Amino acid sequence: MRTITVLGATGSIGASTLDLVRRNRDSFRVLALTANAQAAELAVLAREFGAEVAVVADESRLADLREALAGSGIEAAAGEAALVEAAARGADITVAAIVGCAGLAPTMAAIEQGKVVALANKEALVSAGFVMTAAVARTGATLLPVDSEHNAIFQCLTGNDPAHVRWITLTASGGPFRDWSLDRLHAATPAEAVKHPNWSMGAKISVDSATMMNKGLEFIEAFHLFPVGVERLRIIVHPQSIVHSMVEYRDGSTLAQLGPSDMRVPIASALAWPERMDTPCAPLDLAAIGELTFRHPDESRFPATRLAREAVIAGGAAPAILNAANEIAVAAFLDGQIAFTRIVQCAENVLESCPLPPPASLDEVIAVDREARVKAREAMEPVR
Amino acid sequence: MRTITVLGATGSIGASTLDLVRRNRDSFRVLALTANAQAAELAVLAREFGAEVAVVADESRLADLREALAGSGIEAAAGEAALVEAAARGADITVAAIVGCAGLAPTMAAIEQGKVVALANKEALVSAGFVMTAAVARTGATLLPVDSEHNAIFQCLTGNDPAHVRWITLTASGGPFRDWSLDRLHAATPAEAVKHPNWSMGAKISVDSATMMNKGLEFIEAFHLFPVGVERLRIIVHPQSIVHSMVEYRDGSTLAQLGPSDMRVPIASALAWPERMDTPCAPLDLAAIGELTFRHPDESRFPATRLAREAVIAGGAAPAILNAANEIAVAAFLDGQIAFTRIVQCAENVLESCPLPPPASLDEVIAVDREARVKAREAMEPVR
Repeated sequence: MRTITVLGATGSIGASTLDLVRRNRDSFRVLALTANAQAAELAVLAREFGAEVAVVADESRLADLREALAGSGIEAAAGEAALVEAAARGADITVAAIVGCAGLAPTMAAIEQGKVVALANKEALVSAGFVMTAAVARTGATLLPVDSEHNAIFQCLTGNDPAHVRWITLTASGGPFRDWSLDRLHAATPAEAVKHPNWSMGAKISVDSATMMNKGLEFIEAFHLFPVGVERLRIIVHPQSIVHSMVEYRDGSTLAQLGPSDMRVPIASALAWPERMDTPCAPLDLAAIGELTFRHPDESRFPATRLAREAVIAGGAAPAILNAANEIAVAAFLDGQIAFTRIVQCAENVLESCPLPPPASLDEVIAVDREARVKAREAMEPVR
Repeated sequence: MRTITVLGATGSIGASTLDLVRRNRDSFRVLALTANAQAAELAVLAREFGAEVAVVADESRLADLREALAGSGIEAAAGEAALVEAAARGADITVAAIVGCAGLAPTMAAIEQGKVVALANKEALVSAGFVMTAAVARTGATLLPVDSEHNAIFQCLTGNDPAHVRWITLTASGGPFRDWSLDRLHAATPAEAVKHPNWSMGAKISVDSATMMNKGLEFIEAFHLFPVGVERLRIIVHPQSIVHSMVEYRDGSTLAQLGPSDMRVPIASALAWPERMDTPCAPLDLAAIGELTFRHPDESRFPATRLAREAVIAGGAAPAILNAANEIAVAAFLDGQIAFTRIVQCAENVLESCPLPPPASLDEVIAVDREARVKAREAMEPVR
């Protein structure tokens, strides 16, 4: 029986995590559950799992949360300090699934406990990579990646020495526009961009998949998670999204992790690590799938992965700036302000015109993020 | 620096092994090299690698071997007892690559030393599975499979508990006749059967690949190597032979090992285990390969895998009988005595008509093998 905290319990990763906890009630005791503003939904989960504490980030929802938890004996709290306090209660495993920079401080608080952190917050590694990995090294925490690609790589590295790695290859579906010409891409609409072929996801991440910036950000995450050097990281387009990523060793052996497009597989891998637990996911039927195809990414049509690689090489604040600028540009695209192909161009322009010092602390990462967003909004102006 | 012995140094696995040793002279000191009858070739290798002893199985070749080694200071020996004595010199790693039942006693002698045995002798597990695995358990030897499929499975199991395995899936190229109709199979000639699409191999194993008996025998080997139960072993046809095999875990994660069709990859994996060593094999270029395809085996056209599964379930002497009967039937086919589709039928007939007691020792395994060959030759008679 291990204690578990889920930061971001009402989101998609949170729901998948709690689905697995529900199926394995004897293995986990829930310590803390947190949400952004969904007080009623959070209270229902906190009651179901007998959590010790429930926290909403939005302080205006504290009264609702208190009312919904009345008589349950479950603590209710709100605000950023409460999130950090909940994360610091030292659960054996913390699932860090808060979206965006709001997740940075609670994720860091969990890492500070030196236990297992199952990481689904992209910003932790993209924007705060050096800060986070330094904290992991200092505290002895175990960082288990939950993203399907990084979890795949983690599994393919198990029992192997990273010094023997020749290539880490991230697979990319290529997104809904992978076969579109540049002309057609110019005219791509938000409605077209949010339809992902293999995964059901939110609008922001769907657009990131369509531009392949999602893969670019994952490239940055991989750089921090797996210390093999940027020159050993690459991306291959694999439209079926069955092979989630691969590791090639110096002897010519490539290990790959395959599975259904169901986040419960990588989450289960992290929750049960170093053991395994059951999931309700159907076994892989490769004969029914028939074929797996692979091709090189086309960075002339999809420059986001090149940009991400350049940001990794530039180091310092560059990845945080890229991430922030991309978020603003995606919002502008979804808002009808800029063309699809302008998203990555805008991010590149901001990256080039916004030299910020390397952030050495979480506060500095957040300052870089804020500053880059301001610059990105300004850069968006003349394009309107 | 580790000591290494190669049993079967002049064969294909032996040559690949010594190619790797040649490229890593600082890592290995050669203790013993053995061959069947190729005294001159063996002497050249023994001199090149500064072996302690060279042994030919064929005693009539001892004089040749002695002459070829004159003045080198390398011991020369011949005969089965000398093979066993060489295998028992306790090399840190022994590559057991003698083909056929002649390899059983030397392989067993290597296992008895309780060190690392890189196993390429099929009979050790097909015919003597229970005897060999009992010796491994008793001596604490480490058995590292060298067959590309079993080495792939071994790699996919690294760091994982076999108790969590849902499926072990052996991949099969399907052989040169995988798309042939039953009618066409009846008329298949030896010349057609020995042309394997992906691997360059000897005549016997090429015919086994064409009948898929090779995959059946590998199925039996997998049963002994990986204790997950016969009901968790299965075969999938994968014509490109890039994915060498797979392991699916209870959480829905499938790990696969991929690589070129070059035996130096699995051999290097065994030689360097638990580390990795360089090989000259080209990196895997999945974008150039383009697609990997998969389909279920068709046991109506290729009944060998069904027969192997039945032999595993029957247990006792059945796998040894199947192996011996198949060898005689393949020889009869290559000799023009029986039709291609009769090979597996003959093996099945012998298996059904030849109830032998479960062999409890190596001598009993060899007796079963001998008896089954006699029965198989008799069974072949009326077919002529």
